[in-house]
Amino acid sequence: MATQVVGILGGMGPAAGADFVRLFVDACARLLQARGDRVRDQAFPEHWLAQVPVPDRSGALLSTEAGAHQPLEPMLQALGRLAALGVQSVAMACNTAHAWHGRLQARFPQIDLLHVADEVARALRAEGVPQAILLATTGTYQTRLYDEALARVGMGLITPDAAGRERLMHGIYEGVKRGDLALAQRCFAEVAQDLLDRHGPQPLIMGCTEIPLALPGAPGLVGQRLLDPAQYLAQALALRAYGGRPAAQMS
Amino acid sequence: MATQVVGILGGMGPAAGADFVRLFVDACARLLQARGDRVRDQAFPEHWLAQVPVPDRSGALLSTEAGAHQPLEPMLQALGRLAALGVQSVAMACNTAHAWHGRLQARFPQIDLLHVADEVARALRAEGVPQAILLATTGTYQTRLYDEALARVGMGLITPDAAGRERLMHGIYEGVKRGDLALAQRCFAEVAQDLLDRHGPQPLIMGCTEIPLALPGAPGLVGQRLLDPAQYLAQALALRAYGGRPAAQMS
Repeated sequence: MATQVVGILGGMGPAAGADFVRLFVDACARLLQARGDRVRDQAFPEHWLAQVPVPDRSGALLSTEAGAHQPLEPMLQALGRLAALGVQSVAMACNTAHAWHGRLQARFPQIDLLHVADEVARALRAEGVPQAILLATTGTYQTRLYDEALARVGMGLITPDAAGRERLMHGIYEGVKRGDLALAQRCFAEVAQDLLDRHGPQPLIMGCTEIPLALPGAPGLVGQRLLDPAQYLAQALALRAYGGRPAAQMS
Repeated sequence: MATQVVGILGGMGPAAGADFVRLFVDACARLLQARGDRVRDQAFPEHWLAQVPVPDRSGALLSTEAGAHQPLEPMLQALGRLAALGVQSVAMACNTAHAWHGRLQARFPQIDLLHVADEVARALRAEGVPQAILLATTGTYQTRLYDEALARVGMGLITPDAAGRERLMHGIYEGVKRGDLALAQRCFAEVAQDLLDRHGPQPLIMGCTEIPLALPGAPGLVGQRLLDPAQYLAQALALRAYGGRPAAQMS
């Protein structure tokens, strides 16, 4: 099977970008094993990770000003450099950055720019799950990234109220992004527990790449399904890398 | 402080390359904290990871034939593409690949190509450690990568016999590279235990990037010092990225 060169647009944050490479390598190894190929270094597809400084995505979405604080330009530049490296498919290791997915894809039609929420929606629909809880940034809530992707496949989405959203942002920015994972876990677990108490057991979509770095293992959430969109995105990128079309293969 | 763009040459194996990015991001966060800067996405230096298929390094070193199975050419190509991206310093996430360090550095004099064994030797000398045990590939033993780096700073090196080296290769190739971490841990721990029994407590240099993916946590090695060269290399790359000169700062 022909392999293609693939890229990962990261730096948003850098720890999540590094973790996405790990998930991608794991997904490639599983695909190799599933088709009976020997897992060896040379069986992995060429892939490039760009970790570039990008202005804060949620900040840009909440601001009404245009200008230098906008994330679009550095993302376009990094995508252009990935394209110049011969990359054919790209995954963005940041949920909130998908607010610019349409504009990035339009500027680079030759690249297949994966969409994380569509990958999650496709996988959950295939399982017959009717609805899910979303833990995310205010930017991702505001752009209705998951609401729309899940609605397209007939699924519902439960989201926290304003106080819960603020608590999640505190865990992301003062917790994970500053290296305080204990604080982050407390913030994320409180919001998750509150939604589970009110709506009953539901899959929890950890819809910001910083959340899976801290939430799993939270004492109160044992037995709950924590769903990492990056795993679905990594799996989709691995399928592209090995020449497969995920829409047909995963549903 | 001016930051520079840095690169990571990986794919040897890809899991180790992914793990190296994690170590590099951690090292950057520690440097930011140490100088009192706020750790936020935009404070990290731009960095690129190239994970390219490279023929087996130990296999090439053990073979007397020249030709397509040689790792030098793909490493040169990847390094050239990293240079074109504006990268000024590069770390190679593979110990055995350092057998080609001199030739790669000579071809790209404008790039500062870090040397993993020199980074480890510098750090251990600063601690006053007299000698260490090396767990590595047959390729790394054959090229005397660590023997020479440690000898340059007046340190001794303990290495396993032929049977031990073969056991390590089994753990690396049939264990880590194929995803069987339990097998890998048994192989690595046996060899480590045998050398500790014969030579007494010594720091153990895990001198192949696959070994730290399986050895830590081995029951018999609790309390022993397991030293991951990738951590020293990642720290050195982070110092370069933030404009520091590690030789002066670390010793």
